[in-house]
Amino acid sequence: MNTVEIIKKKRDGHTLTSEEIEFIVSNYTEKKIPDYQLSALLMAIYLNGMNGRETTSLTKSMLYSGKVIDLNRIPGLKVDKHSTGGVGDKTSLIIAPIAAAAGVNVPMISGRGLGHSGGTLDKLESIPGFRINLSLIDYKNVLKKCGAVLIGQTKEITPADKLFYALRDVTATVESIPLITASIMSKKLAEGIDGLVLDVKTGSGAFMKKQKDAELLSHSLMKTARMFDKKVITFITDMNQPLGHYIGNWLEVYESIKILQGEKIEDLLTVSLNLAGAMIYLGNKASDITEGIEIAHSLIENGKAFDKFLQIVAAQGGKTTLIKNPDKYTKPKIVERIQSDATGYLTNINTYNIGMAAVELGAGRKTKEDKIDPLAGIIFKPKLGDKIKRGDVIAELHTSNELNIQPAKELILASLKISKHNLHKHKLIKKVIQ
Amino acid sequence: MNTVEIIKKKRDGHTLTSEEIEFIVSNYTEKKIPDYQLSALLMAIYLNGMNGRETTSLTKSMLYSGKVIDLNRIPGLKVDKHSTGGVGDKTSLIIAPIAAAAGVNVPMISGRGLGHSGGTLDKLESIPGFRINLSLIDYKNVLKKCGAVLIGQTKEITPADKLFYALRDVTATVESIPLITASIMSKKLAEGIDGLVLDVKTGSGAFMKKQKDAELLSHSLMKTARMFDKKVITFITDMNQPLGHYIGNWLEVYESIKILQGEKIEDLLTVSLNLAGAMIYLGNKASDITEGIEIAHSLIENGKAFDKFLQIVAAQGGKTTLIKNPDKYTKPKIVERIQSDATGYLTNINTYNIGMAAVELGAGRKTKEDKIDPLAGIIFKPKLGDKIKRGDVIAELHTSNELNIQPAKELILASLKISKHNLHKHKLIKKVIQ
Repeated sequence: MNTVEIIKKKRDGHTLTSEEIEFIVSNYTEKKIPDYQLSALLMAIYLNGMNGRETTSLTKSMLYSGKVIDLNRIPGLKVDKHSTGGVGDKTSLIIAPIAAAAGVNVPMISGRGLGHSGGTLDKLESIPGFRINLSLIDYKNVLKKCGAVLIGQTKEITPADKLFYALRDVTATVESIPLITASIMSKKLAEGIDGLVLDVKTGSGAFMKKQKDAELLSHSLMKTARMFDKKVITFITDMNQPLGHYIGNWLEVYESIKILQGEKIEDLLTVSLNLAGAMIYLGNKASDITEGIEIAHSLIENGKAFDKFLQIVAAQGGKTTLIKNPDKYTKPKIVERIQSDATGYLTNINTYNIGMAAVELGAGRKTKEDKIDPLAGIIFKPKLGDKIKRGDVIAELHTSNELNIQPAKELILASLKISKHNLHKHKLIKKVIQ
Repeated sequence: MNTVEIIKKKRDGHTLTSEEIEFIVSNYTEKKIPDYQLSALLMAIYLNGMNGRETTSLTKSMLYSGKVIDLNRIPGLKVDKHSTGGVGDKTSLIIAPIAAAAGVNVPMISGRGLGHSGGTLDKLESIPGFRINLSLIDYKNVLKKCGAVLIGQTKEITPADKLFYALRDVTATVESIPLITASIMSKKLAEGIDGLVLDVKTGSGAFMKKQKDAELLSHSLMKTARMFDKKVITFITDMNQPLGHYIGNWLEVYESIKILQGEKIEDLLTVSLNLAGAMIYLGNKASDITEGIEIAHSLIENGKAFDKFLQIVAAQGGKTTLIKNPDKYTKPKIVERIQSDATGYLTNINTYNIGMAAVELGAGRKTKEDKIDPLAGIIFKPKLGDKIKRGDVIAELHTSNELNIQPAKELILASLKISKHNLHKHKLIKKVIQ
């Protein structure tokens, strides 16, 4: 087999065989194919696409570029959730303990923040002592003991995906459905799961701005999951405004604690209950999603979900005193309130820019080398459709560096559209695909 | 400016500005943009194309990546020819002396063989002593003295093109009309020409198999040439069979000598007279192409074209005794005749494979490191439409290595279609575009 001939084939719109895809993935991972050939092929895939069979082959080759974790010795079904990412999207922290409290095993391998979107690992690291780099043995032990474990991608898992992703990021080949599918599914399949709940976000703060694209990605992900005989349920959910009110690493842990302690933050609670409900159903602990949601709800009400969260944090080395009393956490050096300069209804939010404002404040990275400020972020008050008066506090900015305030403030104010007349709200859960 | 944003723009089908193209070309030439980013952009250009303005900008940026030769001190117009390449295509060796004998300056910078297709430089180097690596001063001196000079691309000329070409070759991005256009035109414009005759080949032995593609390329080349205020005439000519009968380096010099000495090898003579006629016209030495062809014809008849060839060879250090008596050239170690195994009409030739058979015999390179055997090649006897009897000699193979014979023989026999009924012949000169 010959790399140039394989590039030509995809360039000319033909279908690659499993052998050709395996040749590319394994040789690139072993550094026998140079970056410049893979990037030409990635652009050809971006522009000419891949069919379901090719996407499955690519997923398989990426999956077997590394170790596939075997969780068969742990009794019960293993179910995870994956979100395509958004602003204020902290549901992983909430639903992992809920599902585990319901008796479902949740072996969760998460990522870091990317661009405007936060990452579960960065959030967990804001809990003093919390270890996200467990060995595979510790990973299994925590899962066995607690029913849930939250770690980062290890070196052994899908090394091809790491290499592909780094190249895609610098060659404008990120937003390709087959490439996204193979990247997500290979990582999730490597965890050793039986079922997967997908939260595909759409709207101004999502990677897929249009619902049509979110649906295409959902179908590709589900088709691939089923080729590997995994049960899968997809929620297409709204990302036209931040989820909940808190954006930033510790701020999102804080809001998750509040939800687990029974606070009713409407949109965040609704999405969390739905996702957790679906996980409980896929884990065979409920007869349908509705029953799963009821169970999830009662596990919050009776305190068992919060207890489970404390148990997981403790098992991974985190300080539970701060989880029990989150208001005792270190305070941010600078807190600045932004007031509205107009009166009317909030009809539109450029949620991407709200995420970027949080990055400006120190909650995310602009370059790979940037260090994250766990305290930095935004408490974003209003929701779409709310009536706002001139002078109302819209957001509270937290940061350690005064210089970050002005650019973040400008970004946020420019992101809001305040109109005379109210518009219908976006539907929160747009679609459930089983 | 940002490389990823430029790749995205072309990926999404938008038009690049001159500044963006210049940013890419100059930074890549200075090794500030890595190969993997350029190859992603090249694939996006391959698949989404470039308009005329972008192609002109790319040509300009490549042209000014190096030195543009100034020939203003040499009186008279400077005209060159470029062929897109084929099998047995030796017209450069014939028309450069004809046009020079007519008083046109021919500053010809040529290339090496590529794949199945021969290169003027490799042919010239089969003449003992002939120097193709002249300094720019010697280049100008030979041109001034002889009216023609034939050299290879120097380091100073279009370095960006060399780097781009090397990357395109290994990333399946060669056959792109805007990229081919910029590559050809930047090199030709760097020579300091006033006019250019293009020989765009089409057929089984050409890079453009279909006439439609050859015409698209012709229009792109001509449009770009005119943006630089150069006069240009294009011939679209047939490459469904070798041009003339001789394929290989010294073999093609030999056949060129025969043409210059007045031998009537029909197709080769016709194409050569047309190209030379157009050069003479563009050089203001004839009032139209027809008159140019008449002048070219008479310069062969009166021996002046051959004398001019001798003068050029001598000026560039070549041994003229062998040009005067080409039959005194070293003989090939092995000569093998192939006979037809069928009776009928020759209705089809896979000319690409005939070229590859010559490469097998040692006339071309399979890897960059291969050394060329100047004696190797094929004397290919029949023309399309000829009646062939079983046992007739079809070809004579020349080589220094006996092991080359069998693969070459098999390639040639498999390339011929001999049928009961004759088919109409291909038109030799398919189109003249002025």
